[in-house]
Amino acid sequence: MRIKVINPNTTASMTAKIGACARAAAGQDVTVDATNPPYGPVVIESHADAALAVPGILEEITAGEAAGYDGYVIACFGDPGLKAARELARGPVVGIAEAAMRTAAYLGRGFSIVTTLSRTVGQARDLAAEYGVATHCLGIHACEIPVLDLETDPKARAVILGACEDALASDGSDAIVLGCAGMADLCHDLSAELGVSVVDGVAAATAVVEGLLRMRLATGKLGEYALPPVRAISASAS
Amino acid sequence: MRIKVINPNTTASMTAKIGACARAAAGQDVTVDATNPPYGPVVIESHADAALAVPGILEEITAGEAAGYDGYVIACFGDPGLKAARELARGPVVGIAEAAMRTAAYLGRGFSIVTTLSRTVGQARDLAAEYGVATHCLGIHACEIPVLDLETDPKARAVILGACEDALASDGSDAIVLGCAGMADLCHDLSAELGVSVVDGVAAATAVVEGLLRMRLATGKLGEYALPPVRAISASAS
Amino acid sequence: MRIKVINPNTTASMTAKIGACARAAAGQDVTVDATNPPYGPVVIESHADAALAVPGILEEITAGEAAGYDGYVIACFGDPGLKAARELARGPVVGIAEAAMRTAAYLGRGFSIVTTLSRTVGQARDLAAEYGVATHCLGIHACEIPVLDLETDPKARAVILGACEDALASDGSDAIVLGCAGMADLCHDLSAELGVSVVDGVAAATAVVEGLLRMRLATGKLGEYALPPVRAISASAS
Amino acid sequence: MRIKVINPNTTASMTAKIGACARAAAGQDVTVDATNPPYGPVVIESHADAALAVPGILEEITAGEAAGYDGYVIACFGDPGLKAARELARGPVVGIAEAAMRTAAYLGRGFSIVTTLSRTVGQARDLAAEYGVATHCLGIHACEIPVLDLETDPKARAVILGACEDALASDGSDAIVLGCAGMADLCHDLSAELGVSVVDGVAAATAVVEGLLRMRLATGKLGEYALPPVRAISASAS
Amino acid sequence: MRIKVINPNTTASMTAKIGACARAAAGQDVTVDATNPPYGPVVIESHADAALAVPGILEEITAGEAAGYDGYVIACFGDPGLKAARELARGPVVGIAEAAMRTAAYLGRGFSIVTTLSRTVGQARDLAAEYGVATHCLGIHACEIPVLDLETDPKARAVILGACEDALASDGSDAIVLGCAGMADLCHDLSAELGVSVVDGVAAATAVVEGLLRMRLATGKLGEYALPPVRAISASAS
Amino acid sequence: MRIKVINPNTTASMTAKIGACARAAAGQDVTVDATNPPYGPVVIESHADAALAVPGILEEITAGEAAGYDGYVIACFGDPGLKAARELARGPVVGIAEAAMRTAAYLGRGFSIVTTLSRTVGQARDLAAEYGVATHCLGIHACEIPVLDLETDPKARAVILGACEDALASDGSDAIVLGCAGMADLCHDLSAELGVSVVDGVAAATAVVEGLLRMRLATGKLGEYALPPVRAISASAS
Repeated sequence: MRIKVINPNTTASMTAKIGACARAAAGQDVTVDATNPPYGPVVIESHADAALAVPGILEEITAGEAAGYDGYVIACFGDPGLKAARELARGPVVGIAEAAMRTAAYLGRGFSIVTTLSRTVGQARDLAAEYGVATHCLGIHACEIPVLDLETDPKARAVILGACEDALASDGSDAIVLGCAGMADLCHDLSAELGVSVVDGVAAATAVVEGLLRMRLATGKLGEYALPPVRAISASAS
Repeated sequence: MRIKVINPNTTASMTAKIGACARAAAGQDVTVDATNPPYGPVVIESHADAALAVPGILEEITAGEAAGYDGYVIACFGDPGLKAARELARGPVVGIAEAAMRTAAYLGRGFSIVTTLSRTVGQARDLAAEYGVATHCLGIHACEIPVLDLETDPKARAVILGACEDALASDGSDAIVLGCAGMADLCHDLSAELGVSVVDGVAAATAVVEGLLRMRLATGKLGEYALPPVRAISASAS
Repeated sequence: MRIKVINPNTTASMTAKIGACARAAAGQDVTVDATNPPYGPVVIESHADAALAVPGILEEITAGEAAGYDGYVIACFGDPGLKAARELARGPVVGIAEAAMRTAAYLGRGFSIVTTLSRTVGQARDLAAEYGVATHCLGIHACEIPVLDLETDPKARAVILGACEDALASDGSDAIVLGCAGMADLCHDLSAELGVSVVDGVAAATAVVEGLLRMRLATGKLGEYALPPVRAISASAS
Repeated sequence: MRIKVINPNTTASMTAKIGACARAAAGQDVTVDATNPPYGPVVIESHADAALAVPGILEEITAGEAAGYDGYVIACFGDPGLKAARELARGPVVGIAEAAMRTAAYLGRGFSIVTTLSRTVGQARDLAAEYGVATHCLGIHACEIPVLDLETDPKARAVILGACEDALASDGSDAIVLGCAGMADLCHDLSAELGVSVVDGVAAATAVVEGLLRMRLATGKLGEYALPPVRAISASAS
Repeated sequence: MRIKVINPNTTASMTAKIGACARAAAGQDVTVDATNPPYGPVVIESHADAALAVPGILEEITAGEAAGYDGYVIACFGDPGLKAARELARGPVVGIAEAAMRTAAYLGRGFSIVTTLSRTVGQARDLAAEYGVATHCLGIHACEIPVLDLETDPKARAVILGACEDALASDGSDAIVLGCAGMADLCHDLSAELGVSVVDGVAAATAVVEGLLRMRLATGKLGEYALPPVRAISASAS
Repeated sequence: MRIKVINPNTTASMTAKIGACARAAAGQDVTVDATNPPYGPVVIESHADAALAVPGILEEITAGEAAGYDGYVIACFGDPGLKAARELARGPVVGIAEAAMRTAAYLGRGFSIVTTLSRTVGQARDLAAEYGVATHCLGIHACEIPVLDLETDPKARAVILGACEDALASDGSDAIVLGCAGMADLCHDLSAELGVSVVDGVAAATAVVEGLLRMRLATGKLGEYALPPVRAISASAS
């Protein structure tokens, strides 16, 4: 089993961190390779960022198909390009937002999302509705820490911990969902400090893809997600 | 008032047709310019097509801002890139699917959508839900005519008319919504033959943008739709 | 194009103000006439008020049909009698609540409604749900100013401005919707002071009717909104 | 305990039938008086009919308050004027559509509504949603029998029985709800022939009002349903 | 008419209190017998408690059928075993949560639930959604008083009154719903002190069953609620 | 990692089959033990069956806690006792209906459920709504094969295949969900014959529990799902 984890932004240090977290969640018989597109935004913090990242994501999917990968993870909490990627891949493709939210739904009545910037809160709420967990999602809390500062700001970890504590207190939730792939490495420490489960979407999506592969389940290819005409892929360059 | 109508695909003959329909719906004091991106898919019939069209759409928005346009129409029934475009433009941006569906909601209890390929039906249903007209949307009917054949297939018009008649009979709807910008020029003839209102999204979106401009209404710029960092725009090239 | 704007209450000064706001939103080739029924409540602040205003509204529609009007606006935020009016008119009929809310939905993720008395808040919430904008409607805020005091209370304008500011702060909304036709004249000043779009339903509904007329769209007449038996209209007198 | 049952239309024979059915459902210590307004439509089959019936209904409520009635039934399946009536009465007011649908919800997973004209189907669906039984309402079936023909057409009973049988077969429902007060007298016969419960809203609403009175429960009078200003009532005449 | 009221827990003093409240709500021609299972949890405060109470409830239903009861009330606010009981009984079975909530929905725009422990709040919210009153249920407030303490804690009554007052103030509701059968006896006193209707589910469910019996309505027996194979009942013992 | 798979009915041959399917879905480092309660219904085909199975399920959970299991699967498509089991276990507990449906939601726009008896269809629909996949669940199809006949009826397999084919054709779904643990062994053969993914909940739930354990995620224990008082467990015997 070979799973390709795609970091939609072009920041290599984040790709490395995401790869480590994905590998830690996978079984021993699974190969996990993490990558990012060669071009695109260095970080995704707006609808425009997400839109501009998608062509690169789709090229990574196409390259992955040529290289024989069995399944894919799209490792940005907005799940950019997920539907298009499902068209292009034969095997399963899972976004970290859908995996994190659906995984958290198994843990009790509801969860709180702790994310980076408040301008992304609406998007997270839309995804919760699309993925059928609107009633499980009890609150979405922004730390106001830009994604790239997660790695460099020495106060980031304390701010995130505080936001998690506030979320648990105000929402009465059973679990925390981390709303950014850049927080993946904080997952176990936060859980230990908070005393509740903390769900990292990178790990969750990797586990979901592994499970789908082991059960030999893949995207339906008879209708909406059938492979589109080749044009669709080659036309992205001017 | 200057409105820029963006045809997201790169087929110039369709851009010309869209421009004519938009102009016919606008007031005399409004300038309507129709354009399409210089690169991207020649037609949009899949999630991948739509995703790959978005960078070009956003470049057209950015160019439009530099040229001083007051508002924009995105003229593809999937409304690709709408949220990102709203971030980048100061004035209003309206998609033809949202405009067509909300306009049809004023015409009675419900409408039927008649569209091109069945693989796009799920997307249309998602948009109806997102735009708050799920209960108004009484049925979505595919003609199985590819977009480009709309202009060349001599039987296309009869097939579409038949699909509209079937939709009215089975759904009991009060109006027809045309599910593709490439059908815009058929609107008035179909209406005359069917005896019910037929809504073309190109005209509807142009009318909505004109109305918003006349009322001096624009996208809120204090939160989710504030102008994103410049990086987001320039990073699309490798 | 001739549009008849019906103020459902019988306060002539409000009818004049509504007419001025509707005219300002219409194109140059549109005639806008504002009127109110000769009998009925002087103001609409309860379900009973609204119910008792409807026979007069319907008489104005019937008179309008005889006079050859092309379309109608019902200018009270509860949209009283809208469905019955749609049965009686050949052309489009639009309520200011539906037009204001759907128009505001084009401006971002969500809007706040600022209205008069708290006893009308439930009604506004019902309408938001009916019109498909329940998720866009982020809050409804009552000023506790009776409708007639809007014209006479020197503090009214400041109270409304304060309510708008509070609404924006608490709801994080992208626009304000004014929840009473009697506030229509405050629209542009409030927008300038608040720095966000402020939607007046009188203007919005006039723009929608004008757009529908230009696109030759009208209420479906084959089913629920077919012209009812004549009895229905003449039986209203004892 | 005195309950006033208001037939919103002005057809006296229907008022008599409704009164008999209401009385049969009430306990021995309950006085049930049936009445109809002195003016208004002779039958309610459109939105306009319903709207024009409301002033007369509200006059009956006001007269009922003066006469000391404890509670009210509004006996038309569209529940016209229900919210306004709740404002004007001190005691409970119940519509036959809400009572019939909520009563049927106790009888299993779902019910089918059998009603008169297809132009009223949309209204019934709206009410099912408003009353929280959208998932219980498995189908709405029109007999295409005008209300007044229910009493005179010798084939009406057979047509209604057939519509009930079709509804049970197609919807898999656990009960039938009769969608018109004019069908109230058919309730027990239909039930015997169909082998399932048949709910008549006149009986159901009378039972609900009786139960509310026995439990000393009434409309909340602190907010939306507080008694409105007197103007609202007296202003209905020119 | 004979109605059997089943207290799902095994606390006899509570059974007696429930019986008295049910009897007070019934008509004079109705026999109301209250009982509880001979085994099971002494109180129901968790999902496990509820689950373990159900076999005893079902034995009471089976015994009731043998004894010729016409209808049943399940007198615990979680409505444990309601669907299974509906399968086993020929006549109607009503839970106190569904009856209380649907009854309160007749009293205005919305109600607040005041209940015992916060761990039951999620369950109450689920039931409000299942019974179609999610929009009517404006708040659920826990007193943090264990069920058995309702009878022994001298401060319980004051705490409940305070919780009701807080609920009315924060929710703007039109009525209070008591969220535990053990509070049934407080209903009329609370209503007098609060000035709004207070709904006790024991009384409400008894009134609903009586109404259904008088109208000769019962659970549909052709589908999901048909009598299950005998095995289902006898197999509960090892 | 040790996972206990509980077959809620008492049919040992089914327990063996379920155990084999669960083991096939688990990783090599996972111990999967399948068991069933010593008492309870031999098969679950009604609400009463399910209710009577729950005490035995909860005893298996309690015994599993004493034996040190890390997580649990409840292997009946109605997910009986799931919430109570989550209270009693420290680690994760997953039902096969929730796992099957959420897993299928990753495979495209929607799935069809193929189940045993039509009297269980309503329950499946309720669970789809509760688990947030109501829009993904495009149809529920009953084979009318009793659970125990799945193992003995030589025609069962062909009937199920036919039902799957009908479901795909009528629903346009991307995957099939098997609506009974007794069908688990048919999963891969059906998938090969149908050409779409077929989801068996036993495998899916085992994969989900394994994933949760590897990520060290468990039910939140601070609120609704905190361990209930000991009484709740011991009181189940008379």
